[in-house]
Amino acid sequence: MDTPALALGSLLHEGKAKRFHATTDPRLCAVEFKDTATASNGRHQVRLPGKGKLNCRISAQLFTLLEQSGLPTHFQGLLGDGWMLVRPLRMIPLEVVLRNRAAGSLLRQLPTVAGQQLEPPLLDLYFKDDALGDPFLSEARLATLNIVTSRERSQLETMARQVNRTLHQVLGKLALDLVDLKLEFGRDASGQLRLADELSPDNCRLWDERQSPDSPGRILDKDRFRQGLGGLVDAYEEINRRIQTLDLKPRRVWL
Amino acid sequence: MDTPALALGSLLHEGKAKRFHATTDPRLCAVEFKDTATASNGRHQVRLPGKGKLNCRISAQLFTLLEQSGLPTHFQGLLGDGWMLVRPLRMIPLEVVLRNRAAGSLLRQLPTVAGQQLEPPLLDLYFKDDALGDPFLSEARLATLNIVTSRERSQLETMARQVNRTLHQVLGKLALDLVDLKLEFGRDASGQLRLADELSPDNCRLWDERQSPDSPGRILDKDRFRQGLGGLVDAYEEINRRIQTLDLKPRRVWL
Repeated sequence: MDTPALALGSLLHEGKAKRFHATTDPRLCAVEFKDTATASNGRHQVRLPGKGKLNCRISAQLFTLLEQSGLPTHFQGLLGDGWMLVRPLRMIPLEVVLRNRAAGSLLRQLPTVAGQQLEPPLLDLYFKDDALGDPFLSEARLATLNIVTSRERSQLETMARQVNRTLHQVLGKLALDLVDLKLEFGRDASGQLRLADELSPDNCRLWDERQSPDSPGRILDKDRFRQGLGGLVDAYEEINRRIQTLDLKPRRVWL
Repeated sequence: MDTPALALGSLLHEGKAKRFHATTDPRLCAVEFKDTATASNGRHQVRLPGKGKLNCRISAQLFTLLEQSGLPTHFQGLLGDGWMLVRPLRMIPLEVVLRNRAAGSLLRQLPTVAGQQLEPPLLDLYFKDDALGDPFLSEARLATLNIVTSRERSQLETMARQVNRTLHQVLGKLALDLVDLKLEFGRDASGQLRLADELSPDNCRLWDERQSPDSPGRILDKDRFRQGLGGLVDAYEEINRRIQTLDLKPRRVWL
């Protein structure tokens, strides 16, 4: 064999829900999805066996769906249960939140009713900074940070809206109502803007349209943990079951 | 005498620091400046005798200064110690904060150092809503509230920047460094946008340029109360002394 096998390298970064490892190929990183659930910026934490594997499978399907729709992501292939290969990116320290309906922190910050439709979807930007608690940004405050030009911001917002529109439509056909989602972006070696992080019920609020609007069973995302409802892994399994029916065949890579 | 005397009518509204009364002339309201100091959205409160009178005198001078610079305000005249006459306005439920230097809540929300100059001055909008704790707004969130058109917002911002520029310059000549200020606006019967509320060390951070940068004696505004430094009325008296040297002769009205 003259193709050198890919092997894991050192741990590059450990986040709340994922570990990033170098590989022997500098154009590839390996992401390990952890079984940890955290809330309140990491202050509450539990281990939920099976969660990492499910988030990895769901993310792989949704990244593949976006790539097939012409939206560049960091996804490069599934490695094994709970592991994926991604391109290393220079990350932009922003969380881009798209809200199709009012939920979560927004209910305490705007006069809105839970579930109220937001048309056009509301786009909120937060500065990724643990010490400051990821503060909410206005356009003027973003400008003082000097982390993106106004052209880059507009590119980022356009892409975030496209991701939201595509996922909202496809998930809707699976009776999954995409309430909101948190996206992170970065640039690859050639400067191309790509969606990074994950696409899972950890960073997307998903409501089961097959359940009645007031039933707690409708909540299929991390709010089950935040609200102490239990049954988080079962809910993620239900989402995974529906999303696997898309049968998008994400690329698999064997070490 | 055929000129009917002006007399006070019923209490229209009581805020944290002022009471608004109707008068026998529907085109005029009487504002009574209270001796109360509040912080943390009204949760901490004390009585500081003399404060109301000082804020009224300082505000009268600064409103007169702005009117003479061509900036419309609600000010119509001084009534007596701690009382002024204003035009009744339809208030816009926004707080417009202009920041020339980083201070207060901003230090917990952006990577900034106390006193750091912000150029251009940072303009922050907050939704006036006690139940929600006056939440900070982005342009997108403001749009969902439907309280101003984008043309009105731009008008409001232009006027707020003019107020800040004028006051910053004039106060600077009195060795008072205008760190930031919180403005409120409304429309009069003819639809004219006017600056309302007050212009005092309750809603303007003012640092004494005659004191050394690290001395607590530099702080001449409500931060003396918020930070438990004491000497608030003395500080307000010092500001009033300097501002009265402007000798702008605000109109006086006798009941």
